[in-house]
Amino acid sequence: MSIRVTLVQHRFPVGDIDGNVEKILQFSQQAIEQKADIVVFPELTLTGYPPEDLLLRPSLGKRISDALKQIFDAKLPIAILFGYPQREDGKLYNKAMVVDHGQVIADYRKQHLPNYQVFDEKRYFQKGADTCVFEFKGAQIALSICEDIWYDGPARRAYEAGAQINLNINGSPYSIDRSRERYQQVKHIVSQWPMTMLYVNHVGGQDELVFDGGSFVVNPDAQVAVSMPLFEESLQTVTLEQLDGQWRVQEEAHAKELSVESALYEALKMGLADYVNRNGFPGVVLGMSGGIDSALSAAIAVDALGADRVMGVMMPYHYTAKMSIEDAEAEAALLGIRYELLPIGEPFEAAQAVLKPAFGDKGVDVTEQNMQSRMRGLFLMALSNKLGYMVLTTGNKSEMAVGYATLYGDMCGGYNALKDVPKTWVYKLSRWRNEQGLVIPERVITRPPSAELAPDQLDEDSLPPYDILDELIERYVECDESLDTILAAGFNEEDARRVIRLIDINEYKRRQAPEGVRISKRGFGRDRRYPITQGWKPGV
Amino acid sequence: MSIRVTLVQHRFPVGDIDGNVEKILQFSQQAIEQKADIVVFPELTLTGYPPEDLLLRPSLGKRISDALKQIFDAKLPIAILFGYPQREDGKLYNKAMVVDHGQVIADYRKQHLPNYQVFDEKRYFQKGADTCVFEFKGAQIALSICEDIWYDGPARRAYEAGAQINLNINGSPYSIDRSRERYQQVKHIVSQWPMTMLYVNHVGGQDELVFDGGSFVVNPDAQVAVSMPLFEESLQTVTLEQLDGQWRVQEEAHAKELSVESALYEALKMGLADYVNRNGFPGVVLGMSGGIDSALSAAIAVDALGADRVMGVMMPYHYTAKMSIEDAEAEAALLGIRYELLPIGEPFEAAQAVLKPAFGDKGVDVTEQNMQSRMRGLFLMALSNKLGYMVLTTGNKSEMAVGYATLYGDMCGGYNALKDVPKTWVYKLSRWRNEQGLVIPERVITRPPSAELAPDQLDEDSLPPYDILDELIERYVECDESLDTILAAGFNEEDARRVIRLIDINEYKRRQAPEGVRISKRGFGRDRRYPITQGWKPGV
Repeated sequence: MSIRVTLVQHRFPVGDIDGNVEKILQFSQQAIEQKADIVVFPELTLTGYPPEDLLLRPSLGKRISDALKQIFDAKLPIAILFGYPQREDGKLYNKAMVVDHGQVIADYRKQHLPNYQVFDEKRYFQKGADTCVFEFKGAQIALSICEDIWYDGPARRAYEAGAQINLNINGSPYSIDRSRERYQQVKHIVSQWPMTMLYVNHVGGQDELVFDGGSFVVNPDAQVAVSMPLFEESLQTVTLEQLDGQWRVQEEAHAKELSVESALYEALKMGLADYVNRNGFPGVVLGMSGGIDSALSAAIAVDALGADRVMGVMMPYHYTAKMSIEDAEAEAALLGIRYELLPIGEPFEAAQAVLKPAFGDKGVDVTEQNMQSRMRGLFLMALSNKLGYMVLTTGNKSEMAVGYATLYGDMCGGYNALKDVPKTWVYKLSRWRNEQGLVIPERVITRPPSAELAPDQLDEDSLPPYDILDELIERYVECDESLDTILAAGFNEEDARRVIRLIDINEYKRRQAPEGVRISKRGFGRDRRYPITQGWKPGV
Repeated sequence: MSIRVTLVQHRFPVGDIDGNVEKILQFSQQAIEQKADIVVFPELTLTGYPPEDLLLRPSLGKRISDALKQIFDAKLPIAILFGYPQREDGKLYNKAMVVDHGQVIADYRKQHLPNYQVFDEKRYFQKGADTCVFEFKGAQIALSICEDIWYDGPARRAYEAGAQINLNINGSPYSIDRSRERYQQVKHIVSQWPMTMLYVNHVGGQDELVFDGGSFVVNPDAQVAVSMPLFEESLQTVTLEQLDGQWRVQEEAHAKELSVESALYEALKMGLADYVNRNGFPGVVLGMSGGIDSALSAAIAVDALGADRVMGVMMPYHYTAKMSIEDAEAEAALLGIRYELLPIGEPFEAAQAVLKPAFGDKGVDVTEQNMQSRMRGLFLMALSNKLGYMVLTTGNKSEMAVGYATLYGDMCGGYNALKDVPKTWVYKLSRWRNEQGLVIPERVITRPPSAELAPDQLDEDSLPPYDILDELIERYVECDESLDTILAAGFNEEDARRVIRLIDINEYKRRQAPEGVRISKRGFGRDRRYPITQGWKPGV
């Protein structure tokens, strides 16, 4: 006795229900050609994940029923498992359905709804209460959806109801180390309630989220038998065989493992590529300062989109070192991208002249620095408007955290690949990328970072060294540690207080920042919902 | 037999737990002086509302227990009802506590958690299940929190448990007509389960939300006996007397009712004033184009902050009509604010000259219009940086909806009073404000609106007339109507398709827009969570 199952990890774009139905039918045909009995798609296949407030539109019901009808009417000779939202008795559920030869043979409501971090499922869905186990070709198969397997209940109840195979469909975004956590959790579940667990995930970028695929199969002995690639569309058919009352996959097939740096880089590439491509931009334009953030951003853009879709612009002023211009030019040459040199001096000084009388007797201060940055933003946006290219924002997480960036200046842009990447990781990734082939001149990596908005300016004049800054940010933002806890860990009090204060008071800047790839357990998007106006004191 | 109750609708700033405890003790003292037996504060008094992700900080528990200890230790000779978050058995609850002479005499967990529109309570809280009715001076008193009274269950169960008085503490933000809906709902509840219902609400602006106060008392006969003012801090003591087994307030005291325009204007003023004041800005600076949006924004700013804290800047270019400069100057004079005239021509043309070679053979298009707008944004932000004033953004909801605004140009700023106000309402409010005293020259209201970024440009060249546009926006955004429904209502198909498409593709702009006062049932902030990247077609 055997059952062949095809796992499909492909892009199912958010909102495009018609297109996603077509994909379901097309991949089901492929699965039929591979002699599969059942084909498995990721969570909310019909709407893509996460559909957000599109789920509130009244026409959702009609669209979904039209889509279901298409799937039924195709009467394909294979069991198709897909995810979809459906309203029943006035309540919306996150569901999974199996359709075989046009007949519904199983239908399941997600039992655990994530409503933390970036997830808002309780805004839309009610939770289901029923276990779903159905017989298929002599096997007892359970359905589960994503969050369900992070609790013991659904798997235990499925096992108690006789399940031998558990098909788990997911919309699980990438974060560093997430893939390992998924394996651990599934093994933990299976080692208590032995079943073959098939985990199928989305792949592709969706605004701030990147779905990394990495679908896999764990046998009842809690060993990973099959793993599919990370960050790639892929379709794989496995054969389950019955032995001693258990079903298991005999074959072993493992996708290449990725290093932390490599996976992170793939996430940044995929997030950017899908944002740019899905939103129809012919390419991207970015400011190249000769610094490491823009150098790495340019490399990611070229790796994501190709050199002919990337344009770099160096916009020097008095404080721009000759070395910076040389390096920006060298980066562009190494990457083979279009490069423009557009000095901001004349319009900047013309603006200063008009504003001078209104400034009264106030001397030079940070205003003039921000004006330089904003003139560069104006240049980039003009190029974007004229050429249709999206402005790629190049700030990193450390800057976003403490507000070391100019709103409407270097923060301009449609998308930011490095938004959730701390500066220390910008260095690591740059070195790692150079190991794959030189794209960033060595001295860009070794020279001390500077915004070059004032004479002899260095980042470390106004911020603690980045290794300390990044640890403070991680503790305060990602781990929610209080000042007391941070001081007890041995940090300098002045540094800690200053960094916490900067993080707190710069919420208004982050609120107007472009989207960017989330790679941590707490990014600065939907993940961290802080009031701008607030009087929380860091204290205890 | 009588019980005197003091209702306190005051500002309890988000996050400032220490300050809020002080306020609780101070207003309790005032209530004691007014010979009250019990004093009632709004929902989550200790943290302010909504505290958002501050609720996730691990130090919350200690801060709350320190705060409770202060309230207990004060041993005030009055029963104090306030709201607070508390973790019990690892779960966080939204609670209400009554402390009398330092002893807890009642403690309640909110049973219904709003998780729609701007509310995210299921992100933080678990729901309670228990009715809380306690005896106090011979009366049976129930506690309830906000959302609880929008369902029948909690009031019914409290009534069945013998409650004669229901103290309901709220964090209910303003929207048009919300005040009337609250009266209706409380009357609906009381007419089924006769109790005296005391409704106490927050007052003040908190980022995009404005809490409008308007606390009130409904007697068991479902009549409103006492209403407190809208948009004002206020403390009021009422006397409940027992008659035939029911308690009721004998006195009648009604705050002045506000017209729709007047309430809306107060909301805009309060939202702006609290944002500016709580975030420590000495004042605001805004671009004055001679158009109606900036004229009304300036009037709101002056009414909210005083003329000496508002600065208007006219930034003309070739396409600025002489009439516009005259009108901007006239508005500034009528309002008595500082006014600057800063032409953008020289830096704008200098920027064009530098960019020309990079533009290649592309002709003049919308790029040059956006550059003018962005040069104005750069000017305003420079003044903001130099003088410390916050830039007040002046775009309205109609523009925000269809993206008729320049990102990093006229969209620059810290806060936008008109963000949720449709253009047709900008006209209504302008006329209404002029009736209270002329601040906007008549021809600013009567001349056809124009962005003045190109020769002889009019808004209606690229958009449907505003009365049609605003109705389309209301149907698509606020009512979630589909294209089919809109067409069935008789709208021109080309207009409808174009407007829907513009709303859909401009989500990226709104995502980077400043905060602004929410006045509708669906603003463009936390209220409407749309993907930027999405393939939903307007169709059915």
